[in-house]
Amino acid sequence: MEPRVSLITLGVADLSVSRAFYEQLGWQGQETEETVFFQAGAMVVVLWGRAKLAADAQLPDLELPGFRGVALAHNVRSEQEVDQIIAAAEQAGATVTRPAGPTFYGGYAAYFTDPDGHAWEIAYNPAFALDADGSITLPPGFGEP
Amino acid sequence: MEPRVSLITLGVADLSVSRAFYEQLGWQGQETEETVFFQAGAMVVVLWGRAKLAADAQLPDLELPGFRGVALAHNVRSEQEVDQIIAAAEQAGATVTRPAGPTFYGGYAAYFTDPDGHAWEIAYNPAFALDADGSITLPPGFGEP
Repeated sequence: MEPRVSLITLGVADLSVSRAFYEQLGWQGQETEETVFFQAGAMVVVLWGRAKLAADAQLPDLELPGFRGVALAHNVRSEQEVDQIIAAAEQAGATVTRPAGPTFYGGYAAYFTDPDGHAWEIAYNPAFALDADGSITLPPGFGEP
Repeated sequence: MEPRVSLITLGVADLSVSRAFYEQLGWQGQETEETVFFQAGAMVVVLWGRAKLAADAQLPDLELPGFRGVALAHNVRSEQEVDQIIAAAEQAGATVTRPAGPTFYGGYAAYFTDPDGHAWEIAYNPAFALDADGSITLPPGFGEP
């Protein structure tokens, strides 16, 4: 199994509400068969009805009031960009669960949840440089003893 | 907010168990401060204690017996590759929730959950070609009315 992720599918309660949320943040969805696809760099983020997604995976669907055990991170190039995106997300209806501030790793970040409770961290991490195309590459020697 | 995901962090119960699972599948982890990072194409997959991740996001941590509302997909180039990866995942201790078989979109796929219940789809989708480096790009005109 090669080390890569092709798609992340987020289960949603109302496709149009969730699509509008991400489009208000500047993403451009492409919809087919009640599924919305966003090209996201070298991969694709998908919105799909959560009951359908659970059935597709043959997993029991449950209402989840809290943390899902997964966080997506969107890294940016400055603290100011964190503040700007968090302000835009709040305007789009996100819930900011952790206000922007310094992080334990020497960066600056905030978390919000989208209309379906999916957690996003918006982070400036000076140790993780972004390439021109937004790709992220672990620094040489990172994590070595 | 640019359309990209920098990191996906999976909350885990036992870091060494979860790291061993992904390494048995061929991924190479880099560990620092009780966190394991896997370079995954243009992004990074991270394993971190789920209580720590919940606290970091300032979200209530809950035991989740079923579907998390999120599925990660790993697309491959043939039906045979789906079968091979599913067999390897089972050997590594995954639970296959949906056996390999034809999909509604004309492909071939299976789902498994990792030691922490995170859902992965291994899929061959002839409509979504993979680039040489494993990147996935939506076909031109995809999702247009």
